[in-house]
This record gives sequence, structure tokens and C-alpha cells, in this order.
Amino acid sequence: MSEYNSLPLALAAEQFAKLPGIGIKTAQRLAYFMLNLPVNEVEEFSESILKARKSVKLCKCCQNFTERELCSICADENRRKNVICVVESPKDVSAFERAGGFDGVYHVLHGLLSPMDGVSAEDLKIKELISRLSDVNEVIMATNPTVEGEATAMYIGRIIKPMGIKVTRLAYGLPAGSALEFADDVTLVKALENRSEL
Amino acid sequence: MSEYNSLPLALAAEQFAKLPGIGIKTAQRLAYFMLNLPVNEVEEFSESILKARKSVKLCKCCQNFTERELCSICADENRRKNVICVVESPKDVSAFERAGGFDGVYHVLHGLLSPMDGVSAEDLKIKELISRLSDVNEVIMATNPTVEGEATAMYIGRIIKPMGIKVTRLAYGLPAGSALEFADDVTLVKALENRSEL
Repeated sequence: MSEYNSLPLALAAEQFAKLPGIGIKTAQRLAYFMLNLPVNEVEEFSESILKARKSVKLCKCCQNFTERELCSICADENRRKNVICVVESPKDVSAFERAGGFDGVYHVLHGLLSPMDGVSAEDLKIKELISRLSDVNEVIMATNPTVEGEATAMYIGRIIKPMGIKVTRLAYGLPAGSALEFADDVTLVKALENRSEL
Repeated sequence: MSEYNSLPLALAAEQFAKLPGIGIKTAQRLAYFMLNLPVNEVEEFSESILKARKSVKLCKCCQNFTERELCSICADENRRKNVICVVESPKDVSAFERAGGFDGVYHVLHGLLSPMDGVSAEDLKIKELISRLSDVNEVIMATNPTVEGEATAMYIGRIIKPMGIKVTRLAYGLPAGSALEFADDVTLVKALENRSEL
């Protein structure tokens, strides 16, 4: 407290320091920055964050963030409801939507299986996925190409396949615009294995 | 907006992106982080920042941040009021207080002279410094050892010296615990120039 010469300032810095990736030095800098802003801008900052937290909930269908019952993608009549792209987090939905080219719907797991971190199947939105599989033709497992992502895709695939639904996985290969010489070994081997005819 | 699938979420991310050093990717990550916190923690975050902005003002004497009329250092009877250490920002006061060893008082300029950025003498708390110089023996110019810091120290020194007050400057030299081989040229030359007898 004496370091800040003001208790409210110290408390504000403490709050910033709770954010991921923000250390105590940066938190202090952010708190000082706030003091130099006009009051109405700080109000706007403060309120918009609280409003986001209070108004945003999970879409009852795909579990993505939304402030309505059904998110805009699930509510969109032009999206094919029989193809579900399963992703780890809402950020991944953003990435796919930004890229464009997918006209199906999503399902957000809100995490990946990770026994080391104590994340088991019950912690993910797997039950919610299973419950929306009637009339679905294909489930695309679009989890990250990491150990946890693979394990989660395998686990869910093993539950869904016996239901007679096609389960696919995102393609591994060279990233567009990259150079062969910089590709890692696993990617290169996968790109070779999954080669297609010209 | 479609990228976030939720307007309040997009607005919250936009607010985070206004903070210094926070890009749009990090802002998005912080906004998502907030959604996963309990509501009361987000309230605490939001309120503490607004409270800091609203309750913190400038000490009427030293211009440091405080929520009272007079900051705790200026109000402290044990601090020598006839030695003023002039610094650029409240952060510098924190640094000195953390280090300890100074029992005088401070004066916060809230900036440095920088004609390139349009910061002139009127934008700094120089008038406020001049007005508190009666009964002061020494003014220590403790601005950063940069071009702007030096220029500001020189400028203020030239105003104060004719008033018969001793004006000093922080010593340049090798940082404690450092190695000669890593010191830059300017520091090394200054350290040599300002050598003292053992």
C-alpha cells in the first residue's frame, strides 16, 4: 500500500494482476493508465466487462457464448444442422467463422480431456453433444492437433461412431504459405501420408 | 461481432484492447477469461477500477496520487519537508519508497518536457513545484537519465537555482550488482568521470 501511496490504486492494480499473462509490473502500469483516463471512459470500461459477464451465457444448443437462448449460428436457417464441427473453445468458432467456408453448426466442448490437470469427460460438454445427434450425418472433430486434442477426438469418436454417424478429423498437413524446410517432422510425415492425387 | 457471436463480449474485448500494450488477440483472451470467472469476482474487478479512478486525486502539495487532500508522505511529520525529490511519475515515487533511504518529500511532474510529443512546461506540474519552494534547502532532480529527463532537469534547474536553492541530480554510474563488460559506453564513461576516493 505504501508503495502506491493510495489504497484504491493498489487494489485496482491487484485486480489487473489477476488477469492471465499480466504480471504485477504491468498491472501497476494499467492501474496508473486508468487514473489518467476521463471518468466516463473508465465507467465504460468497467461496465462493458461486467455487462459481458452478466449477459453472456451458453447457447442451449452448441454451448458457445451468446446473450440469447440460441446463438446466432444455431438460429441461422441457412446453416446445415446435420453437420457438427466440435471444437475446444469459443475462440475456435471465431477462427472458423473468420476463415469462412463452413456452413454447418458447431459444438463447443469448453476444454479438452486432460487427466493430468484433472479434466475428465464430465467436465466437458460431451453429454450436450450426444443429446443433439439425432438427424446428424457427420461430426467433425476439430480439436487442436495436440496430445489432449487427439485424445479428446478419439474418446468422443469412440462414443459416436457406434451410433452410425460419420466421424471425421481435420486434415493434418503443411500450413498454407509455409515452406517445407521449416515444417516439423510430424507435420511433414503426416503431409506425406495424406497426399492426394493432382 | 459475428466473430464473437455475442455483442457484449465483442465490446468487452474492445475495451481491453484500449489498454496500453494489449493487442486485439490478448484483449479477446482477457474477455473470454472474464466470462469464466464467478460474477462476484468480475464485479470486484470492475468496481475496484472505477473506484480507483473516482477516489484517487492529486495530492495538493506533491501532486502524487492519493485519495486524501494530502498524500501520506506529505502528511508524515517525520519526513523532511526542506528536501524535495522531483520525479516524472507516481511510479518513481513507488520505486524510491520501495528502495527506502530517502526521508525527504517528493514532487511529481506527471511527464517530461518533450517538444516532439507536444509536451511543454505548462503541461507539467512545474508551477506547483515553484510555489512550494519557500523554506526548501535542496531540490533533487530525479528524472530518468534519458534525453527528455535531462532536458527537464536542466530546465527546472535553471529556474530554481537563481532562487538560491541547491539543485542536485541523481548520480550516473554502474548499477549495483552489474558487470563492467555489460555496461554501455555512456554509463562507463560517466562512472569513470564521477569516480570517488576509496
